[in-house]
Amino acid sequence: MRNWLLPEYIEDILPAEAARIERLRRRVLDLFEVWGYELVMPPLLEYVESLLTGTGHDLDLRTFKLVDQLSGRMMGVRADITPQVARIDAHLLNRAGVTRLAYSGSVLHTRPQTPAATREPLQIGAEVYGHEGVESDLEVQQLLCAALEACGVRGARMDVGHVAVFRALVARARIGAELEAELFEALQKKDIPSLRELIRGARGLDAVSREALLLLPQLYGGAEVLALAARRLPKLPPVTLALATLKRLAKASTIPMSFDLSELRGYHYHSGIVFDAYCEGVAGPVARGGRYDEVGKAFGRSRPATGFSIDLRELAGAAAPVKPRERILAPAVRDARLAKKVAALRARGVVVVEELPGHEKFRSELGCTRRLAKQDGAWVLVPLTPQPPKR
Amino acid sequence: MRNWLLPEYIEDILPAEAARIERLRRRVLDLFEVWGYELVMPPLLEYVESLLTGTGHDLDLRTFKLVDQLSGRMMGVRADITPQVARIDAHLLNRAGVTRLAYSGSVLHTRPQTPAATREPLQIGAEVYGHEGVESDLEVQQLLCAALEACGVRGARMDVGHVAVFRALVARARIGAELEAELFEALQKKDIPSLRELIRGARGLDAVSREALLLLPQLYGGAEVLALAARRLPKLPPVTLALATLKRLAKASTIPMSFDLSELRGYHYHSGIVFDAYCEGVAGPVARGGRYDEVGKAFGRSRPATGFSIDLRELAGAAAPVKPRERILAPAVRDARLAKKVAALRARGVVVVEELPGHEKFRSELGCTRRLAKQDGAWVLVPLTPQPPKR
Repeated sequence: MRNWLLPEYIEDILPAEAARIERLRRRVLDLFEVWGYELVMPPLLEYVESLLTGTGHDLDLRTFKLVDQLSGRMMGVRADITPQVARIDAHLLNRAGVTRLAYSGSVLHTRPQTPAATREPLQIGAEVYGHEGVESDLEVQQLLCAALEACGVRGARMDVGHVAVFRALVARARIGAELEAELFEALQKKDIPSLRELIRGARGLDAVSREALLLLPQLYGGAEVLALAARRLPKLPPVTLALATLKRLAKASTIPMSFDLSELRGYHYHSGIVFDAYCEGVAGPVARGGRYDEVGKAFGRSRPATGFSIDLRELAGAAAPVKPRERILAPAVRDARLAKKVAALRARGVVVVEELPGHEKFRSELGCTRRLAKQDGAWVLVPLTPQPPKR
Repeated sequence: MRNWLLPEYIEDILPAEAARIERLRRRVLDLFEVWGYELVMPPLLEYVESLLTGTGHDLDLRTFKLVDQLSGRMMGVRADITPQVARIDAHLLNRAGVTRLAYSGSVLHTRPQTPAATREPLQIGAEVYGHEGVESDLEVQQLLCAALEACGVRGARMDVGHVAVFRALVARARIGAELEAELFEALQKKDIPSLRELIRGARGLDAVSREALLLLPQLYGGAEVLALAARRLPKLPPVTLALATLKRLAKASTIPMSFDLSELRGYHYHSGIVFDAYCEGVAGPVARGGRYDEVGKAFGRSRPATGFSIDLRELAGAAAPVKPRERILAPAVRDARLAKKVAALRARGVVVVEELPGHEKFRSELGCTRRLAKQDGAWVLVPLTPQPPKR
């Protein structure tokens, strides 16, 4: 067995990609900072109770479990950072007003979420706690757009749904938990035949509810969808509010926005808008977000919350390569003036690689284009020939 | 049970500390880059065979184990990044000459290494592969000193040992594995009575070996230790070479350096110098390093290697707090000129926090000192009264 092979869907990140990721990470965190978002760093490990409470079965299945040798209790390696940040807002910062938090870090999944996914996504995200109006949804969507723009992403667009629409229809029709789960399943899969059959077989469902539930999968497309929904869905307060929220977001958006009222991703977790952002060069969504007002409740302090998380590896895959800095070779010579020159170049951000004795023949691997040479008693930069192959 | 409590020795990093860590992380990675070290990001998880081969029993005990649901094989969450980077050098980059690599990331330990330690150290480190001379040891020590200086650390000093001295004495005296382990244990604990007893009880040990082994725990202190060792230890080639290496390092060091020839940390792993760096404000070592030429062998390609790893959380604890940026409050008003002004301020690196409707009464929590106000049709900065409490 070759003992250096990695598990499936687990990869090393090598220098060219690591440089791209590190550059984007800094850009995005800097942007979060000037928008007033404070960086926090939750741990990789928590007890399963704190990691998974209020987050639903999906996340539980995705979470690696470990026994804590110190307490004998079950711990999990985080599969998502958002619930951890909600815990920090609820219990550690303990502010009464709005708190804006940012994070960046790896999570682990027991299985890849899609056949093309990694089991170690690198999340970078921002969350607003303590505000339940549309203004905070708007702020996080604008921040996401600004982050994608700062990263030089092309063709950014957003798909937005709102889980309150389906939830209000279920409540109006007093649909039981079992049928709710089946309808949810059919809607998620856009499985119209099953949806029809479920609705036909459901007892006590009035014509308005039937029509509304059957309409949901068609409510997919541009802003016209919102007008259609307003005309054809029952005038329930949560539906009216949801449509007004989506209209407001559409009006403010600087990138193309489409709507999908049967999109119920994270239904057990989200409570308002849900959105996915896409861009050129990335197959799946590059960022996902939404409102999840109920998560903090699990920690004994319910706070409205809205935010998003970008997959930094996916984003880096779509971003332009980092232009490599010039690399200068310094000879293996002990000389105080040379050392001073090397330090001055490095202080200016130039990469200076010291040659190590006995390695002159592998010089081309170092990627240097010029070298330091002594001319008339001074150390100067001269071309390095032959030029190295491109790295 | 309060389900938001974290496991013992596991902590959240809150905004003030996270800002310090992020700043130091960037400074150190930037320094590594201009010295020619390329960033890599190995995964959090690997099969135990690749994670632990060639690294010794200690690391195995510190490593959390997990079953891979995809393969049924045992995986480990990394407890150290160095062996991963050695694997990358050996198999992925596959260069014939010198490779310089850098990394930064969290590791997990099943138990804290000391009663004051965290189980989630944040490592940042640099490694040179492919060079076995003293020049690469010198380079990594100089880089470590430069990194500590760039972080504003005070009172930096270094303790250096060299495992080849003890190894050569053991080889000379043909000491068996069992006695070697016992002597090692006694030396590590500086347990002189046990050491004496072991040496007295050992059969076939000549006077020179006895004297040399008993001398080792006394070979602790400044440069005079090297002179004493040169006089009193047997003139074995590895001992002579080790002492020459230490002398060269001492001469080049810009920080106080002391020596300890009975320091055998990582004996099963290291093959040459081993060193710990200390500084004001950190109880234990803030960085550890050494030469470990044999690690790559486990991956089928033995390459000389030398490097170090800084504990970024410990370092951040000793570093000065980040001076908070000025925070400006922007009113919850839709106005194109206001939006332009906000964007311009943020582009200059000023933090602008937008007020969200309904939250005026919690304004003081936002930490802003000035606000944007409309005066004569233009948006200008005016003092915010009352001033917020210090965060």
